[in-house]
Amino acid sequence: MTPLELELGNASGRIYMMQARKLEIQNQIIQAVDLVKKTNPMAGSITNTVTINFVANAQIAIGGSAAMVFMPDEAETLSKMGAATYVNVGTIIPVYDETLPRVAETLYKEGKPWILDPVAVGIGDLRERVLRQFKFRKPSIIRGNASEILALAGLWELEGGTGKSNVRGVDSTDSVIDAMDAAIALAKWTNGAVAVSGETDLVTDGSIVVLSYGGSHFMDKITGSGCALGGVIAIYSTVTSPFIAALTGTAVFNLAGNRAEKVSGGPGSFQVAFLDELYNATAYDIANNPLDIKEV
Amino acid sequence: MTPLELELGNASGRIYMMQARKLEIQNQIIQAVDLVKKTNPMAGSITNTVTINFVANAQIAIGGSAAMVFMPDEAETLSKMGAATYVNVGTIIPVYDETLPRVAETLYKEGKPWILDPVAVGIGDLRERVLRQFKFRKPSIIRGNASEILALAGLWELEGGTGKSNVRGVDSTDSVIDAMDAAIALAKWTNGAVAVSGETDLVTDGSIVVLSYGGSHFMDKITGSGCALGGVIAIYSTVTSPFIAALTGTAVFNLAGNRAEKVSGGPGSFQVAFLDELYNATAYDIANNPLDIKEV
Amino acid sequence: MTPLELELGNASGRIYMMQARKLEIQNQIIQAVDLVKKTNPMAGSITNTVTINFVANAQIAIGGSAAMVFMPDEAETLSKMGAATYVNVGTIIPVYDETLPRVAETLYKEGKPWILDPVAVGIGDLRERVLRQFKFRKPSIIRGNASEILALAGLWELEGGTGKSNVRGVDSTDSVIDAMDAAIALAKWTNGAVAVSGETDLVTDGSIVVLSYGGSHFMDKITGSGCALGGVIAIYSTVTSPFIAALTGTAVFNLAGNRAEKVSGGPGSFQVAFLDELYNATAYDIANNPLDIKEV
Repeated sequence: MTPLELELGNASGRIYMMQARKLEIQNQIIQAVDLVKKTNPMAGSITNTVTINFVANAQIAIGGSAAMVFMPDEAETLSKMGAATYVNVGTIIPVYDETLPRVAETLYKEGKPWILDPVAVGIGDLRERVLRQFKFRKPSIIRGNASEILALAGLWELEGGTGKSNVRGVDSTDSVIDAMDAAIALAKWTNGAVAVSGETDLVTDGSIVVLSYGGSHFMDKITGSGCALGGVIAIYSTVTSPFIAALTGTAVFNLAGNRAEKVSGGPGSFQVAFLDELYNATAYDIANNPLDIKEV
Repeated sequence: MTPLELELGNASGRIYMMQARKLEIQNQIIQAVDLVKKTNPMAGSITNTVTINFVANAQIAIGGSAAMVFMPDEAETLSKMGAATYVNVGTIIPVYDETLPRVAETLYKEGKPWILDPVAVGIGDLRERVLRQFKFRKPSIIRGNASEILALAGLWELEGGTGKSNVRGVDSTDSVIDAMDAAIALAKWTNGAVAVSGETDLVTDGSIVVLSYGGSHFMDKITGSGCALGGVIAIYSTVTSPFIAALTGTAVFNLAGNRAEKVSGGPGSFQVAFLDELYNATAYDIANNPLDIKEV
Repeated sequence: MTPLELELGNASGRIYMMQARKLEIQNQIIQAVDLVKKTNPMAGSITNTVTINFVANAQIAIGGSAAMVFMPDEAETLSKMGAATYVNVGTIIPVYDETLPRVAETLYKEGKPWILDPVAVGIGDLRERVLRQFKFRKPSIIRGNASEILALAGLWELEGGTGKSNVRGVDSTDSVIDAMDAAIALAKWTNGAVAVSGETDLVTDGSIVVLSYGGSHFMDKITGSGCALGGVIAIYSTVTSPFIAALTGTAVFNLAGNRAEKVSGGPGSFQVAFLDELYNATAYDIANNPLDIKEV
């Protein structure tokens, strides 16, 4: 073969491999979605009181079961009882000083998947101290907006992180692509997956990066679409790998958001339609929501 | 009369008595519903933060007034100020160690109706300790799913209870009929009423059992239909007996759930339609929601 | 000029002045609404867990950004980070003993606008103690129902206040006009503005009183319309004076409530439509929502 033919051969080989990988991912998504609908798995949550109802309803809508607690002993019981746990530090209360380290320790020892949502990292002592400790309890999946992912990587002194948090309250001031290196570094450190939420969403396991498309501008016009995604990923993580769980959750949110926007006249009706679409989304449609795969 | 005539006579007498009892119950339901709509009674709540908004909205929708607190002194004030109180242990926080015993003590001393929702009994120390104490503060109405009712009867060492909790987070793994003996034992002990929620709902005052039909499969696809029922029963208990209050709340939920399902495309739109139907349900329709009466 | 001509001249002069004042107010409303939509300002909240989700969604719907915390240090950070802060004492928890005085102190020192919602003043020790202290931290805007405004003025020993609270849980038992003197006294004391919510709403800066019309009977059939209004006023206060902020929030709520009622079949669909209408309301329509101005 001439060098050109060789190059073309490699390129087509790569394209073929990526297509094969995509098909494999899509099959895993279909399996995860169907398994959740069949088995109704429970994932406990320690989450904020702003969006706690929306998180529970989203988890139930996709076929899971929700339970939320605040006390240290109950969080430990729940983290052993559930097949996965969702930890969102949105609204800290004093007892979390004991609850959060204890639940992370339990999940780490039991080897159970857990999802961390590092909301508003950088605005308080307890929040920062706990998030710093979590570095060594290695959450299976980290989900956040770009600013949160950058700030967490910075707090953990990983590559791509920022020393100074750009988190403004609960909002991101950075773009998803800006957070790619930080996301990859976090995924490598935890040996898990990271989902960065934004206009286009990014999911990585540290070796490949998937961009997931869809959603709706209304997702920024309601509170809790990020938290609800974290809760839904926790449910999927009970039946599949962290990477596929993060991707499945992201895909169903992009699909449901896109569909809900078409029948919504504002953020109120969007939230209602979004829960309906989460419930009605089929495994096939979720797997076929547009995505792009890139090797790191 | 021949023995056969006697038997038929007894049977028809019994049928006649049951029909009379049913009419009496239906009249009491009509009175309770109308009285709430006319007088806008207030029932305070100490309830979980997952479904607290839905509880308040359901209480208001049927004509009541809602107020929620967490602090011991405020809970005491509210339990004296309100005509009934709803206590739901869904999400415990440390101050409940003082709040819950104090509010139960106050209600017991004042002889005011109170409704206990023993959510997720068995998952933590404080929760269990408090629920154990409640045995001697005799809640007027206990509302729960089958597993919760079985576990509470077990905790209180009553007939029909289970030593080991089958509660999985907030879900039931037992059927309503399995919990009938436990429900009757609890109602006899408290001299009040018990409502067991499931596909068919069971309400008992310890001497008769009523099965209430209707509802929707969507009631399991949202969070808080049980809590909201507890809150609504608390409102009705301000104007009628525990038994009629439990039955009226159960009937309006079955009616509204059934109607809401017909106009819903998923759990999001169901929740919206459900609140509308709670608001629009007439006393007559609530009283005529299908029910069966059995003597114990 | 004859005395009659003089009087007519004065009258027409007064009418002219009031019309000019109205036009000025309407222009300020238009500017405030547009500036919020353009700049997406953030207002942090320390608010109750019953309606916390609705508050956040209302703030986002009008173009603002929401963030809620409970811890003392986080509340301090947020009150410095945000351009205004919303403080609602609906559901007190023990840590508020430190959080609330600290956040009020910070806002007072920084000279930042903050909005106080004195929910259920009079039902507990911590609540009362904190609300008493707030007298000397002078909230920029106080929003409440008539009973709450009367009770707060009484607690602060201002003119028009009541020594005894008529607050029944979270409901008002007094009318808006009954609270006018108390509202004026509070506005004069704080050198800010007061918004009294009721069938007709009253907003005052201590020198003029504006009555704002519209809304819906459904606003009393859901929980949180008052809290959400407080949160929305906080957002507007980041870009305009306390008086215009209070009036803009009140006007958009009256407009959205009125429009939402027309497409609602009950309180569930009303709440959904209300958020849609908050989002869709134009600056022009908000400024032209009916209002009357009176000099004090």
